[in-house]
Amino acid sequence: MNEDTTPQAAAAEATFPVGDLRFDDRGLITAVVQDAEDGRVLMVAWMNRESLRRTIAGGTTWFWSRSRKELWHKGATSGHVQRVREIRADCDGDTLLVRVEQVGAACHTGERSCFHRTLDAPGA
Amino acid sequence: MNEDTTPQAAAAEATFPVGDLRFDDRGLITAVVQDAEDGRVLMVAWMNRESLRRTIAGGTTWFWSRSRKELWHKGATSGHVQRVREIRADCDGDTLLVRVEQVGAACHTGERSCFHRTLDAPGA
Repeated sequence: MNEDTTPQAAAAEATFPVGDLRFDDRGLITAVVQDAEDGRVLMVAWMNRESLRRTIAGGTTWFWSRSRKELWHKGATSGHVQRVREIRADCDGDTLLVRVEQVGAACHTGERSCFHRTLDAPGA
Repeated sequence: MNEDTTPQAAAAEATFPVGDLRFDDRGLITAVVQDAEDGRVLMVAWMNRESLRRTIAGGTTWFWSRSRKELWHKGATSGHVQRVREIRADCDGDTLLVRVEQVGAACHTGERSCFHRTLDAPGA
């Protein structure tokens, strides 16, 4: 059997049509940003259709700020841009996984990842 | 200088108090689930306070289903439970990163990760 026709190869090539993405009732979709080099989860933010369009067109990440109600180009001020290597969609099309090359720090605190603290939940 | 007192060491030990987490106006918080072994992002789901409490107390993941409006214990039917290794919070406390040992497949399709398809966005 030609290995290009194995189920594994077919699965590896499967794609998700951008038109089938499910934005929520606010027009937003969750975007998880992961370092493409070491797999570290860097941050989670929101995209609307326009920020996704700009991200795809320009190759660096744009998000929608729910608090400021405006588009923001990650790193526009700090220089800490995220160069997009790959965008993946989850099985039901309501979450994106954006794999990036992170310049500098992803977090506004200066930490490489926004997830720099473990949850302190004694006993729970 | 004692290396235990470097800023790096302090940052590595920093924790986020569970009581400071910010649940949204629906009482939910986004949870990104990552394979603790290979760093693969497996799925994204929602937790409310009770599902987080059960997750911490029992050591396997519980979520809140927005469509079914009920708690669900991941793997209760399939056996594909997620054993929690670590829970991290992001800088502003409104997203969790749950690092797990995944038994079997995380996705209901049988794929290991829900993010098994790349986004097909020609031209954008």
